[in-house]
Amino acid sequence: MIGEPPLLLVLDLIGTFVFGLNGALTAVRAARLDVVGVVTLGMTTALGGGIIRDVLIGFIPPATFRDWRYFALAFAGALIAFALSRGLARLEIPITVFDAIGLSVFAVLGASTAMRHSLGIAPSILLGVVTAVGGGTLRDVLIRQIPTVLRSELYAIPALVAAAITVAAIHFHVYGVPAALGAVAACFVIRMLGVRFGLNLPGPPGVEPDFGGEDSQPPQGTRDSQ
Amino acid sequence: MIGEPPLLLVLDLIGTFVFGLNGALTAVRAARLDVVGVVTLGMTTALGGGIIRDVLIGFIPPATFRDWRYFALAFAGALIAFALSRGLARLEIPITVFDAIGLSVFAVLGASTAMRHSLGIAPSILLGVVTAVGGGTLRDVLIRQIPTVLRSELYAIPALVAAAITVAAIHFHVYGVPAALGAVAACFVIRMLGVRFGLNLPGPPGVEPDFGGEDSQPPQGTRDSQ
Amino acid sequence: MIGEPPLLLVLDLIGTFVFGLNGALTAVRAARLDVVGVVTLGMTTALGGGIIRDVLIGFIPPATFRDWRYFALAFAGALIAFALSRGLARLEIPITVFDAIGLSVFAVLGASTAMRHSLGIAPSILLGVVTAVGGGTLRDVLIRQIPTVLRSELYAIPALVAAAITVAAIHFHVYGVPAALGAVAACFVIRMLGVRFGLNLPGPPGVEPDFGGEDSQPPQGTRDSQ
Repeated sequence: MIGEPPLLLVLDLIGTFVFGLNGALTAVRAARLDVVGVVTLGMTTALGGGIIRDVLIGFIPPATFRDWRYFALAFAGALIAFALSRGLARLEIPITVFDAIGLSVFAVLGASTAMRHSLGIAPSILLGVVTAVGGGTLRDVLIRQIPTVLRSELYAIPALVAAAITVAAIHFHVYGVPAALGAVAACFVIRMLGVRFGLNLPGPPGVEPDFGGEDSQPPQGTRDSQ
Repeated sequence: MIGEPPLLLVLDLIGTFVFGLNGALTAVRAARLDVVGVVTLGMTTALGGGIIRDVLIGFIPPATFRDWRYFALAFAGALIAFALSRGLARLEIPITVFDAIGLSVFAVLGASTAMRHSLGIAPSILLGVVTAVGGGTLRDVLIRQIPTVLRSELYAIPALVAAAITVAAIHFHVYGVPAALGAVAACFVIRMLGVRFGLNLPGPPGVEPDFGGEDSQPPQGTRDSQ
Repeated sequence: MIGEPPLLLVLDLIGTFVFGLNGALTAVRAARLDVVGVVTLGMTTALGGGIIRDVLIGFIPPATFRDWRYFALAFAGALIAFALSRGLARLEIPITVFDAIGLSVFAVLGASTAMRHSLGIAPSILLGVVTAVGGGTLRDVLIRQIPTVLRSELYAIPALVAAAITVAAIHFHVYGVPAALGAVAACFVIRMLGVRFGLNLPGPPGVEPDFGGEDSQPPQGTRDSQ
């Protein structure tokens, strides 16, 4: 990540690791998969958002294929989650916290990467959100869950807030470690408040959706994929 | 869209808007989603096909990220559909008509964009079809429906016809507003005839497919995702 | 495929053809689709992995859009499978063998293509695996099955072995027809042994996964998507 302060590279690597952990734990809970399946899903969660971002901004091959540390940390996170899944799999709290950390860090770094590649303000914010939610969405599609971003308590909104703060800070030339950490913290806090208080955004006014099909999944389902 | 007649840019923007409407309405009907989920699916439907096309032809960042109007119209269409979903959600007709308009416009513009980027004849036709069906396919995957392109009455075929007319017109140097509108009209008419008369292409000869699994979805299901 | 020995180009074309056959047969068995759906899925299976690989290494437009033979062979394979599906659809053996051939060939050629485009050792191995499993994974997502790579007997591992042999041979300047065929054979044999003896990698230690949801699919299910 050229031009990014070192602390943010560290955050990026931490985000990769915790998304690897989180993706693998989600996979263990949602489907009976072998070690290859679990590690594949952990790595998809950790690396997917960044790969989509890099392809869309034209930074090809993506950073994941240039810097072995992303690959190594995603793999390590997924493998650790697999090994410890007996202890971790039923714990909601660490999965949710890991996910919120990754979401926050990736939203900020996705937006700043897009700005550094000369994209406009709105596209950079959008790419921040895509970076943050992309990996988890790929994972959910592969294990046939409705993606978290579509059905959960406040999930895309905190990422959007973090990306917007980042883009504003870069635009006004005040981006640096404090601004980045502030954006990360804002996303993390909003996300955790959403989880804690079960906040949901409003559904469509007055519509009673049709739940006849087997492929409708009410969002109040107790299994949660984050 | 450099080099495209102004009318076609207008058509492209109209197609983006109606796909935003259509994708959001489909989302409202298929799953109980909040406003972020509905708008996300509307924008995915409206922008997904063009983004896939631009990545495959090497026009990166994709047009969506360069021209804010695509983004704005997709967002507006999705938000309007969300707000009006009480009135619109049970109406089959507008969803189907919006979808057919988007399908027709995107097939023509996808094929002409590919030709302008020096792709060959067959790849340009294929990219026209991918542009037309790509966004809706992403949407269907995210809400766990078998994509319309795989199971519905004539859906890919009209897009193929429109893309082929477009490519032929460009190849023989007669492409312009009349040819483009003719191709759009051909796709729209074939698609609407397919819907009206429930036309389906033949299934495999003599095979009784296995419907034992929960993930098989017979195409005669009454819920229709367009 | 510049710089690849002619035999390997032949193998690549064979792999494309058998993946077209295989993808279409899988589609016929899994869902009641019309001819467009079956051919679309066959072509997605045959071409998807290579397109993803080419986008990620920056070879855009992808080889599929430059060399009409890939397109033609994928189409032919899918159409033949559709026409003969009455006879072929219940036969496990040819589907599995075709799939193992495609998997082996694509893993080798994916890895060698990545090396030729100056990617590092680990990314090249990863891209070999992605090339091999990408098309089938797209197909499984479109027909709403948990992808084979996540749930089946040894599937990603043989592709990983073939890609690693290929990358090692290129790295030590001994790559050529014998090395490539050796890598293909290694993958094919490991895969077929996995199928024959139902070998599975270990699941997570001591976890009893939750199968309450309709979207969990135990890997011991009799329907197999390869």
